[in-house]
Amino acid sequence: MGSPDDNRLRFQLRFTPARVVRRKKDGFVSEEIRKNFASDNVTPICPEVMAALIAANEGSVGSYGEDDLTRSLNERFGEVFETEVAVFPIATGTAANSVALSALVSPYGAVLCDESAHINMDEGGAPEFYMHGAKLICIPSADGKVDPVTVPPVLKSNAESGILSPVIQALSLTQANEWGTVYSPDTLAELSRIAHEHDLSVHLDGARLGNALAHLGCTPAEGTWKAGVDVLSFGGTKAGAMAAEAVVFFLNDRTRPLMKNFLRRIKRSGNLWSKHRFLSAQLLALLQNDVWLKNAVHANAMAQRLVDGLRRHAAAQMPYERQSNEVFVILPDLLLKDLEEAGYGFYRWPTPEGVPGTLIRLVTSYYTRPEDVDALLAEIAA
Amino acid sequence: MGSPDDNRLRFQLRFTPARVVRRKKDGFVSEEIRKNFASDNVTPICPEVMAALIAANEGSVGSYGEDDLTRSLNERFGEVFETEVAVFPIATGTAANSVALSALVSPYGAVLCDESAHINMDEGGAPEFYMHGAKLICIPSADGKVDPVTVPPVLKSNAESGILSPVIQALSLTQANEWGTVYSPDTLAELSRIAHEHDLSVHLDGARLGNALAHLGCTPAEGTWKAGVDVLSFGGTKAGAMAAEAVVFFLNDRTRPLMKNFLRRIKRSGNLWSKHRFLSAQLLALLQNDVWLKNAVHANAMAQRLVDGLRRHAAAQMPYERQSNEVFVILPDLLLKDLEEAGYGFYRWPTPEGVPGTLIRLVTSYYTRPEDVDALLAEIAA
Amino acid sequence: MGSPDDNRLRFQLRFTPARVVRRKKDGFVSEEIRKNFASDNVTPICPEVMAALIAANEGSVGSYGEDDLTRSLNERFGEVFETEVAVFPIATGTAANSVALSALVSPYGAVLCDESAHINMDEGGAPEFYMHGAKLICIPSADGKVDPVTVPPVLKSNAESGILSPVIQALSLTQANEWGTVYSPDTLAELSRIAHEHDLSVHLDGARLGNALAHLGCTPAEGTWKAGVDVLSFGGTKAGAMAAEAVVFFLNDRTRPLMKNFLRRIKRSGNLWSKHRFLSAQLLALLQNDVWLKNAVHANAMAQRLVDGLRRHAAAQMPYERQSNEVFVILPDLLLKDLEEAGYGFYRWPTPEGVPGTLIRLVTSYYTRPEDVDALLAEIAA
Amino acid sequence: MGSPDDNRLRFQLRFTPARVVRRKKDGFVSEEIRKNFASDNVTPICPEVMAALIAANEGSVGSYGEDDLTRSLNERFGEVFETEVAVFPIATGTAANSVALSALVSPYGAVLCDESAHINMDEGGAPEFYMHGAKLICIPSADGKVDPVTVPPVLKSNAESGILSPVIQALSLTQANEWGTVYSPDTLAELSRIAHEHDLSVHLDGARLGNALAHLGCTPAEGTWKAGVDVLSFGGTKAGAMAAEAVVFFLNDRTRPLMKNFLRRIKRSGNLWSKHRFLSAQLLALLQNDVWLKNAVHANAMAQRLVDGLRRHAAAQMPYERQSNEVFVILPDLLLKDLEEAGYGFYRWPTPEGVPGTLIRLVTSYYTRPEDVDALLAEIAA
Repeated sequence: MGSPDDNRLRFQLRFTPARVVRRKKDGFVSEEIRKNFASDNVTPICPEVMAALIAANEGSVGSYGEDDLTRSLNERFGEVFETEVAVFPIATGTAANSVALSALVSPYGAVLCDESAHINMDEGGAPEFYMHGAKLICIPSADGKVDPVTVPPVLKSNAESGILSPVIQALSLTQANEWGTVYSPDTLAELSRIAHEHDLSVHLDGARLGNALAHLGCTPAEGTWKAGVDVLSFGGTKAGAMAAEAVVFFLNDRTRPLMKNFLRRIKRSGNLWSKHRFLSAQLLALLQNDVWLKNAVHANAMAQRLVDGLRRHAAAQMPYERQSNEVFVILPDLLLKDLEEAGYGFYRWPTPEGVPGTLIRLVTSYYTRPEDVDALLAEIAA
Repeated sequence: MGSPDDNRLRFQLRFTPARVVRRKKDGFVSEEIRKNFASDNVTPICPEVMAALIAANEGSVGSYGEDDLTRSLNERFGEVFETEVAVFPIATGTAANSVALSALVSPYGAVLCDESAHINMDEGGAPEFYMHGAKLICIPSADGKVDPVTVPPVLKSNAESGILSPVIQALSLTQANEWGTVYSPDTLAELSRIAHEHDLSVHLDGARLGNALAHLGCTPAEGTWKAGVDVLSFGGTKAGAMAAEAVVFFLNDRTRPLMKNFLRRIKRSGNLWSKHRFLSAQLLALLQNDVWLKNAVHANAMAQRLVDGLRRHAAAQMPYERQSNEVFVILPDLLLKDLEEAGYGFYRWPTPEGVPGTLIRLVTSYYTRPEDVDALLAEIAA
Repeated sequence: MGSPDDNRLRFQLRFTPARVVRRKKDGFVSEEIRKNFASDNVTPICPEVMAALIAANEGSVGSYGEDDLTRSLNERFGEVFETEVAVFPIATGTAANSVALSALVSPYGAVLCDESAHINMDEGGAPEFYMHGAKLICIPSADGKVDPVTVPPVLKSNAESGILSPVIQALSLTQANEWGTVYSPDTLAELSRIAHEHDLSVHLDGARLGNALAHLGCTPAEGTWKAGVDVLSFGGTKAGAMAAEAVVFFLNDRTRPLMKNFLRRIKRSGNLWSKHRFLSAQLLALLQNDVWLKNAVHANAMAQRLVDGLRRHAAAQMPYERQSNEVFVILPDLLLKDLEEAGYGFYRWPTPEGVPGTLIRLVTSYYTRPEDVDALLAEIAA
Repeated sequence: MGSPDDNRLRFQLRFTPARVVRRKKDGFVSEEIRKNFASDNVTPICPEVMAALIAANEGSVGSYGEDDLTRSLNERFGEVFETEVAVFPIATGTAANSVALSALVSPYGAVLCDESAHINMDEGGAPEFYMHGAKLICIPSADGKVDPVTVPPVLKSNAESGILSPVIQALSLTQANEWGTVYSPDTLAELSRIAHEHDLSVHLDGARLGNALAHLGCTPAEGTWKAGVDVLSFGGTKAGAMAAEAVVFFLNDRTRPLMKNFLRRIKRSGNLWSKHRFLSAQLLALLQNDVWLKNAVHANAMAQRLVDGLRRHAAAQMPYERQSNEVFVILPDLLLKDLEEAGYGFYRWPTPEGVPGTLIRLVTSYYTRPEDVDALLAEIAA
């Protein structure tokens, strides 16, 4: 696709995708061993979502969301989250985060977030584009989680700077975050309390919300609005969809004015599908029978199986606790080269100085099977 | 979906979508009579594209376009358009137009277009958003087509205004345009010649390019770059896809610098799918065996069948020549009410003053069958 | 200054500024005959404003508006306009209009204005930049004035377009406008009434407000908020200042929420002077003893003197009634050439087809003397 | 001025401006003792600039820069900087920095700078606004200076992130910077070399360039383009002007394409004065007889006098070396209270934890006299 001079992807040159495709299994013509641990977005569409796309492909319906599937979204999400919500489907996570934030802050405002946040590091400047130049003000952390004690001093300093600094109007948190770790509902609630006290609204980037909930063992409600979250980017793509996320406003006095004209923001940013039913169908399929949560439980279990195996290798160092479906591990460079030659896919991460080896990220998904994890562990052991 | 206070759609309140769904026919469980003529985007996904989505759903592949389907796009489009191209898939037409234009003009620049153009009237301000506030400078016309003689005076006046007016840097044309009429390749070439002489690049909004080509009987090459078009928004959704358009750069000395970093613009606007294969698969399916053109030929024929029938009704006035798959017709208000009660879907359009009745738009598609047209005509005759 | 490739100014090549500078008169070392009628911004600073700048240049004071002169602005403007106001000084009219409009409309919104409006034709796209891509939706007119009867249909069509069209949230009027004509307070009030009924706020571009008030013979209050104006761009530069305009919010229920954080908008757009007293001093000097209005009365009288003289020339055609300090007149091309050779400065305007000669604009100011007008008339008569 | 709910200025509540104004001295009716050390922008206009404003106020001249003063800028600045330049006057430093950066980076790009940089901390988000949402990527430092060894790793990481991170296209340095320290020409040259190797252009925020040059004892050329600087924000306001900065492009192969249409950017951002001569006159007056540098030499000497005096006080801790006209000193809180009660003006700064007292900033200027410094020192000693 497109321009040859684009430096396309982080660490791309080192990434060799697995290509061994042989036989049919669980509905897919697929790799014998699934060796691509680069991300949970290298996966196909899960069977339930694909079935929903096929089922939705019947007859003429109103475009731009004037269809029955779309009309049922608010109610269905409301049931899952046990509260009144307004749901806006969007194909990509970057767009969902960005358009959500654009409703929470003025162009002269700012969003407070962790320095490692996806919105700051991995979305190509989309939040700043959608927010018309509003600023991300970042707090560094060791593990990707904003520590509540660090927030009040930043807000105080921001207030003291007056008009010289963009005014912080929202707090954006990621659950599970970029290092695979997870906020407890108590910490979320504490952060939300501080935010609300300072007139900030709270946004949750939930691209991997299911994995976080699966880890915490709490309900979607407990992990979001009951902990003070105002607006959620609900992640569907990594949970098994083709391309489907949703901005979910939990209705309250703070969110009602913010969501005014939100559909205009979606249209104006090119995110409104004319054949909108196919966006809604994916989301409904994920909610149906808790597919998104079941997929997350499975992905987490596969990540734990990987961690358990890696712990048996002296050379493997894991700097973060495994709390979702991402495993960060430092492995010797020679071993990594062997893995790549064996067809395994993963991303290298910046590695702390002085440590022998390289930090890599291994991501599991609904599509990862125990035998795939075991094969990788065997390859590492060999 | 979403906010109840949004005034969602043009003339929405009057629109009653057809809901009579009964039995299986040509692959769809579908309406016995397809009564929704509101747009070519109320239709389902055509069988070839759906098959391609299913076929693409196998195994892990690189994300963000690092997959074999995406890698084949440039070559495949190059074959169809008989020249070297760079292709960037995008889910919606609004985003495709807008991100394309953002590469052609500076934020302090302007785009020249017809006043009726989709980018000016129907995209919710997306072009201005993507272009960071660059201006659309519009020329009025009777039939939605920019008349070449009107262009040089506007460019002269723009040049004379110097820095007081945003500098026009691109000409955007729509083919087929909002009134369903079509530029001849000669007129396109004349407009492109004028544009290039004044250092403007030429963008073609081809949301219904197939319908225009089907009407003109010319090749994709003759209807685009051979007539001077530099950048095309290739329309897939209305041609039968789920959600798939493409920005196609025809490579030449003007376009090569403009497309630099184009993928960054796509990522930054939230348009880059992680599971990118499913965007590419749709486009490839449309090109395979000329599905897009065959669908367009069929849609045009259905529109002509409709025109032929309407001509037999004294009350029906058709202000524009039918040249694609859109039919504009003025019908008595009582008749329109009857049609709506019978379940027919269509949009009302602003009607010239003093004319009895109301101007409506009837759009056909690959999904419209002769019996559907005949049923509508019979309803009108009744 | 700067880049040689910029096409700097409208009709610049034909403009030869008067350069005959000889002797001192009324405080200025100045041209014997003042021949530059190109604009009211080719003039020097009027004596009262210059005296105020010198007077303000004493001692250290707080920066960014924390000075006594600035602190007195709200009260002083409040006296002149006979109501409670919030005043924000800004150096240029383009910035004042643009930052004002950015507070009245959302980025997904639109401003309704006359097609000839300065914000649409002469500000280099600044309104769109400051409004983050919000759109100007323009109504054509014969004389630069929005006709009240044309407004409701545009608002109705905009509402019916729903999310497909940016929502019109403000009406911007120009007083006096680009063709030198002036709204009556009754017409202003009628336009404001329509605007407010549709939830639009009303902005008045008053770069030449003094000239309009001088023509109408009404008070500043009658010509603005009593006629429904919510926000005014108060023009100081053309009235005699060096570089000083002001955004004036007339406080009411509509404007109070809009002006929230307005100072942030000013800072963020680079318009906040650190040595702010020198901006405020200019404005206060104009208000003191009604200098701005006296200057306007004089400028208008000089324009009328010019009109009276031109009427005696058969070849002179004046398409618009003289209502402020701008005179539009069609004169034979040979005569214009002679005027330029004699050192006269003026701008050519696009001339209606079929008319012999060229339309030019002659602008008078506080700095124009009767003998200057008479000299020009004599030159034309010769 | 304006809205009462704006939180206007950093630490404003603690700031009590000196108000003791008594008698005439050196041209000013002024404070007996000048007690306002809050900033170098609390000062009046220096006599040479005021004289130039008065001198420029003669006769009609072309507007928007079509005047002789403006026409002479390129040559005059070229003499001072000993190279070919293109000069664009702008009233405020925030606007000068922001419009300059907007020419150096694409909206999808980024600027690399020190975390403490004025563009990051003190300009209310103006750079992001002017750059249409391009990002500031910041490097932390101890003393406000980017350390050359920290740059390559950031550029490497940025390149590896590919399209996921906005591409760094410019390096912005501040001279003298926010902590009053100064880059040596060698360090500047080293930073520029790294930047140019990576296709970054180099911007210098020279709001206090004169103070830096005065400290370094090098020529303007040695301190800028000979050390690799491509574009300079030349600071005039703090050097004695009313409101006058300039964007200075040092012409080379990198800058020539970047400055294309730069005047359009100035107009579009509302920064183009119609009575442009008064902006140019200020700058010319500063250059004439090296007024800007002489003022800087004096200001620096006054700062050194202050440092010398403070060193005699055991309680005074100065964390940074005095290299320009800013003195940072930690003083006991009781003393600060006494100083404020005595009418002294200064800003409090965030103070490192565990240190007794508070960090304050004391700024000297052309307007500070030895007796003013001595009076302050005496007050502290008392």
